Amino acid sequence: MSLNDVSQKPYDRLAAWLAEDMAAVNALIAQRMASEHAPRIPLVATHLVEAGGKRLRPMLTLAAARLCGYEGDQHVKLAATVEFIHTATLLHDDVVDESQRRRGRPTANLLWDNKSSVLVGDYLFARSFQLMLETNSLRVMDILANASAVIAEGEVLQLTAAQDLATTEMIYLTVVRGKTAALFAAAVEVGAVIAGMPEHQVVALRDYGDALGIAFQIVDDLLDYGATDVAIGKNTGDDFRERKMTLPVIKAVKKADAKERAFWVRVIENGDQRQGDLEYANALMARHGAMEAARAEALDWAAKAQAALNVLPDHPLRGMLNDLAVYVVARIA
Amino acid sequence: MSLNDVSQKPYDRLAAWLAEDMAAVNALIAQRMASEHAPRIPLVATHLVEAGGKRLRPMLTLAAARLCGYEGDQHVKLAATVEFIHTATLLHDDVVDESQRRRGRPTANLLWDNKSSVLVGDYLFARSFQLMLETNSLRVMDILANASAVIAEGEVLQLTAAQDLATTEMIYLTVVRGKTAALFAAAVEVGAVIAGMPEHQVVALRDYGDALGIAFQIVDDLLDYGATDVAIGKNTGDDFRERKMTLPVIKAVKKADAKERAFWVRVIENGDQRQGDLEYANALMARHGAMEAARAEALDWAAKAQAALNVLPDHPLRGMLNDLAVYVVARIA
Repeated sequence: MSLNDVSQKPYDRLAAWLAEDMAAVNALIAQRMASEHAPRIPLVATHLVEAGGKRLRPMLTLAAARLCGYEGDQHVKLAATVEFIHTATLLHDDVVDESQRRRGRPTANLLWDNKSSVLVGDYLFARSFQLMLETNSLRVMDILANASAVIAEGEVLQLTAAQDLATTEMIYLTVVRGKTAALFAAAVEVGAVIAGMPEHQVVALRDYGDALGIAFQIVDDLLDYGATDVAIGKNTGDDFRERKMTLPVIKAVKKADAKERAFWVRVIENGDQRQGDLEYANALMARHGAMEAARAEALDWAAKAQAALNVLPDHPLRGMLNDLAVYVVARIA
Repeated sequence: MSLNDVSQKPYDRLAAWLAEDMAAVNALIAQRMASEHAPRIPLVATHLVEAGGKRLRPMLTLAAARLCGYEGDQHVKLAATVEFIHTATLLHDDVVDESQRRRGRPTANLLWDNKSSVLVGDYLFARSFQLMLETNSLRVMDILANASAVIAEGEVLQLTAAQDLATTEMIYLTVVRGKTAALFAAAVEVGAVIAGMPEHQVVALRDYGDALGIAFQIVDDLLDYGATDVAIGKNTGDDFRERKMTLPVIKAVKKADAKERAFWVRVIENGDQRQGDLEYANALMARHGAMEAARAEALDWAAKAQAALNVLPDHPLRGMLNDLAVYVVARIA
């Protein structure tokens, strides 16, 4: 199963419920991507924005705001802000990872060049800040600026943790919280803040986003080792090639015997990767139950996300967010 | 002459007058570059920040604020914000340009990798937004967020204008206004805004920064063709190698005969560069007086910068800013 599978109910129910808001977000994104002087900017950005991303993060902002009874229109600006930040990080990630495919299409760095990806990413970052300023809410700006810093910090930490077999599950969690969960958490938090919710409910929604983001990223990392046969729109094996220390690898390394450890040292630390190594890595992870253990952790985080929702008002959107937590893990069912 | 030449009076007088403020800016920069989780961030950023950059832009912010009679401490935050934005763009520029030297030292992308330069740049951008939020001035945030967007736009435009002999002086001016003058203008404007100056004086200072930035960049582009023998801390000939359409090239191309045009097509449009081509390009620019004409334009912009200062209060700092405008052009005297 993948996020593209139309049989997936929670995501579709959210999309249907928020369709009008989402149309406004898409219109705003198209409008603010424009550049008077540099037509390459909308060209590059549109390639990514229109490539069928599911707009999960802006949808979380809209859902949080509406669930909190918000009736204004600032949540549309915030949702677009969140999507701009996300798109900017994707453009930069693809440069950093030297990726070739994203959302089933060639990446922008491959179609144009790394330069365009770096600079258009910078432009979208700047646009995201311009957009959030329009809300006039210093608290909202603070949340999103902090998230941007934590995202970059997580990415840098991932860079230094890669190729290092000593990377612990604790370090992995810090990386994931930064590179993924920070924006999920900020996305729902700003929705609650703009709606003027009491503090404990703002915190609950932020906790939901944090746990949902962690579950989502653990599953993403599992999918990169081919946990499913369904196309996920990017190449599997990328993390292995980039020698990233993701959760299943960390778990397999922890249980490795001397011979297995020598294998991990060669492929991850020394970067000496040969034909059949990815398959052997998969076999080692299977032997030690690393995939199942990682999936169990993703389910734990999904449960934490659901538990956080308890203090929120009874609302159809609360039910959908609840189901969404299970759904992001069910991608590898 | 170069900015590093201690005999240069206007810069030194500014630095001496603002020494206490500047020490506070440097302390704030060091403090905010820190990262709890990713020690590589201060490592990379410090490499660049401590490499002896002259802190010209933050100094402009401090000078503008003090010239306007400002007595608070927000200008220190704004100056640090400006330097963070500048440092982030330098890190990304070096990736885009594949540069090897900056401020007389190997670039971060060479010492670490492109990945670190991209991500640490992103971190500094995010930090700059966190810092500007602390001023609680929406107007200041708006100016700096706009400048960030215009900078990225200018860089993308430069990318698409490179290798294109049809690039006009008008396009060059748009690029320069974006990639350089936007931050000069914002740097002085926020100083005036935080000091609560009347609108016509805010505009005057912005105009000063805009014209100063344009003069500065024209001269930078001339220096890249070896207009002086003094080391400028980066390789000369970089723009030629990157096939950038800077002002002296545009002027030489405009006056080229058929044979000369064939040369420019080969080296700039086709990128077929051979031994001796840079020297021949210099000879063609000399033949058509392209360097002198470009220098004359830089002087015109310096004069515009000076004229803008007329409506500002009489103050020793006004005199220094006035002299600074001549000084940035005198680098190629």
